[in-house]
Amino acid sequence: MSGVAKAHANRRNSVVQAVAEVSALLGDRLSTSDAVREQHGNDLTWNPGAAPDAVAFVNNTEEVQKVVQICSKYESPLIPFGTGTSLEGHIAALQGGICIDVSQMNNIIEVNAEDLDCRVEAGVTRKMLNTHLRDTGLFFPIDPGADASIGGMAATRASGTNAVRYGTMRENVMSLTAVMPNGAIVKTASRAKKSSAGYDLTRLLVGSEGTLGVITEVGLRLFGIPESITAAVCPFETVDQCCQATIMAIQIGLPIARIELIDEENIKAINVYSKMNLAEKPTLFLEFHGTPLSTKEQAETFSEIAADLNGGPFEWATLEEDRNRLWKARHDAFWATKAMFPEKERFSTDVCVPISRLAECVAETRADLEQNNVFGPIIGHVGDGNFHVILFCDRSDQEEYKRVMGVYERLVLRAIAMDGTCTGEHGVGTGKMKFLEAEHGEGLNVMRTLKKAIDPLNIMNPGKIVSL
Amino acid sequence: MSGVAKAHANRRNSVVQAVAEVSALLGDRLSTSDAVREQHGNDLTWNPGAAPDAVAFVNNTEEVQKVVQICSKYESPLIPFGTGTSLEGHIAALQGGICIDVSQMNNIIEVNAEDLDCRVEAGVTRKMLNTHLRDTGLFFPIDPGADASIGGMAATRASGTNAVRYGTMRENVMSLTAVMPNGAIVKTASRAKKSSAGYDLTRLLVGSEGTLGVITEVGLRLFGIPESITAAVCPFETVDQCCQATIMAIQIGLPIARIELIDEENIKAINVYSKMNLAEKPTLFLEFHGTPLSTKEQAETFSEIAADLNGGPFEWATLEEDRNRLWKARHDAFWATKAMFPEKERFSTDVCVPISRLAECVAETRADLEQNNVFGPIIGHVGDGNFHVILFCDRSDQEEYKRVMGVYERLVLRAIAMDGTCTGEHGVGTGKMKFLEAEHGEGLNVMRTLKKAIDPLNIMNPGKIVSL
Repeated sequence: MSGVAKAHANRRNSVVQAVAEVSALLGDRLSTSDAVREQHGNDLTWNPGAAPDAVAFVNNTEEVQKVVQICSKYESPLIPFGTGTSLEGHIAALQGGICIDVSQMNNIIEVNAEDLDCRVEAGVTRKMLNTHLRDTGLFFPIDPGADASIGGMAATRASGTNAVRYGTMRENVMSLTAVMPNGAIVKTASRAKKSSAGYDLTRLLVGSEGTLGVITEVGLRLFGIPESITAAVCPFETVDQCCQATIMAIQIGLPIARIELIDEENIKAINVYSKMNLAEKPTLFLEFHGTPLSTKEQAETFSEIAADLNGGPFEWATLEEDRNRLWKARHDAFWATKAMFPEKERFSTDVCVPISRLAECVAETRADLEQNNVFGPIIGHVGDGNFHVILFCDRSDQEEYKRVMGVYERLVLRAIAMDGTCTGEHGVGTGKMKFLEAEHGEGLNVMRTLKKAIDPLNIMNPGKIVSL
Repeated sequence: MSGVAKAHANRRNSVVQAVAEVSALLGDRLSTSDAVREQHGNDLTWNPGAAPDAVAFVNNTEEVQKVVQICSKYESPLIPFGTGTSLEGHIAALQGGICIDVSQMNNIIEVNAEDLDCRVEAGVTRKMLNTHLRDTGLFFPIDPGADASIGGMAATRASGTNAVRYGTMRENVMSLTAVMPNGAIVKTASRAKKSSAGYDLTRLLVGSEGTLGVITEVGLRLFGIPESITAAVCPFETVDQCCQATIMAIQIGLPIARIELIDEENIKAINVYSKMNLAEKPTLFLEFHGTPLSTKEQAETFSEIAADLNGGPFEWATLEEDRNRLWKARHDAFWATKAMFPEKERFSTDVCVPISRLAECVAETRADLEQNNVFGPIIGHVGDGNFHVILFCDRSDQEEYKRVMGVYERLVLRAIAMDGTCTGEHGVGTGKMKFLEAEHGEGLNVMRTLKKAIDPLNIMNPGKIVSL
């Protein structure tokens, strides 16, 4: 038996003891049922899942601390879990261990309307938070699509359609409470809007995917609900023109709240799925936030930019009903593609490049998809240079699987070669680990150093982001 | 001789060897002259300075790498240096060693106008960068007052008057190149606007004050120069009303570019110094950026807010000449106070609190100053809850010094007790180290763990932020 295999075997023996001790602590809030374990170790992606030995449904930070202390004592792996909507194998219990499910930690601890901030437990979802905020005139803008937990969104540095205006979790998490691998409870920052008081522990944990600590509370920035929201849609002849329009809008400082690209392939799918009659062209979906005067001005300015690039017709609307009609295609985009090949699995991946390279990156990817006969509609958060390719594949067809994987790997390496990143918002998990060396070079060693220093026993979500 | 003293003595012996080796590398770009060493080890504050053994004027990242490798080999301390305008003893060579002066690394490597970003060497100052950018229609907004180097601004997580709209160095540094203590050259991120690809090495180094790596290049976000800039001034009866007006403006989402508070004491000083006739009341100085339409709308909205709080008269202007007249008092504020007691030394400190606590924090501080007969005008970046107290003291008067230090320490602890931070923008250096335990608790141990892991020999700016 090799040293590594022996270490794993030892660890497995100790997991049994850890589970017993956590069971004594939590009673029936520690589940070892197959169904619960399966559900907590498998996401809906192609990344291999693995069930944990047990799932601990914790109620507060102190319980998390106790579970972490037990796991540390027995060197048992632990995997933090929010809603399980991550997309890169983040929740797979590759070495077994205990899943810490924080979904029952769903208290909104405080809302400080005057300071435009709030503090929530990690299991609060973004929709729960926005429902709670409705009467305050405030909202939390980050929208990754799924109704993810705030703790999970912080852990994966989530973003989504609003990021172009409001930033990502990197900019919007003000502080975190986390239980570190040694059991220490750390509050990473105060409620001050800015600070120069030492190392940025908040940003160390945002995006750490449960590998450095278990996030139990999150302090967030909030924003006033805009007085006026205007939606708009504008088709262009080419993806390049969509990108040029976006670049111009951002360069002149137009504070666009959302600017989404849907490519021709996806528009075709939408026309079939939603019985619509859209021009089958690359199309931008936009949203402007502000006063009635400023959103009108923004829409007019963008319509001039579009006209200069022969885009159009540019349609815009301010009433909610009309806005929904315009944006229906965007909302249907993901499901529409499924209907094209219902028998195939879909695998959504993302990359992000400097916006000046976006058109080129999309065009080369589209050509690669076509050359290899892979169906892969493209949806982009184009204001950030971030786009998704939804790869379709029948994995029982080895030959097709190989073609799809080829397209996927070339896509990621293309983005890195264009001074971009292997993932703009989905995270590393296990799926993107193999690309980190190409992206970060020596930086990957610094990441390993951080992981080893903070989690010397390698108990926190082992086998994700960096391998030790 | 104690173990620590012996370790220091050993280190001192090895510094001599390190200096000799760096001298062989750099020739006359390694200075050991007293004047150069003194200038590089002392800032203009009350924090104790200490001259390094030598100053290395480096030309590029590879030279920095070689100097770091030599310092590592001999376990010699090294202290990165930009313009020496930091304010908390950051540059003091407390244990001797080699100062690495990057001021000759002042190339602007690239400006990517389409992507609103650029990359500069660490020695480029913010004014050099903005002069270079003038013809592009872009600008770099972070303005800490001094014409600091971009590398130093990144290292101290600098901000200033524009931060309320544009953020701080935390938000505006996209990536860094740094030489790590082991000599590795690390580029922390790509040019993608967002990424979820692993730990946030950029934010690990921003604010690390030269204790984790020597920053040699910085990638920055840029912004379009606003089409229209409007300046405004508005006196209020009380500091509380200034804060209330600020809170309301921010809560309704008014995208103010600058909102600065100058208290009554400081206005009095300005009237004397600049022969002005301002109402001797707490006063807000504002700036709005946008289109002509939107800046007009912003100014009008703010004037309504002010009127509701009995503030005024609200004056505003769009032409540069008129704007400069309105803002003259703000620009004169720091020098005006000096003229009040030219024989005393001044010590500028800063704290930052949630904006809802700002009025209370300023009022309690003002009362404490008066009770203890300490002259301390207050200037605030009020939109961020950040303010400066300029403490006047004749340090040869022991009794006065004690009173001033009492006020200072109570100010910092008051800010922390209000869920704020001991420093919003000046940094820790040596001056604020004693407050980090109160602010961060267990987090301080995490900071120590990071420092030990990244810099096990403790050669990078030792004795700053965390003591080991």
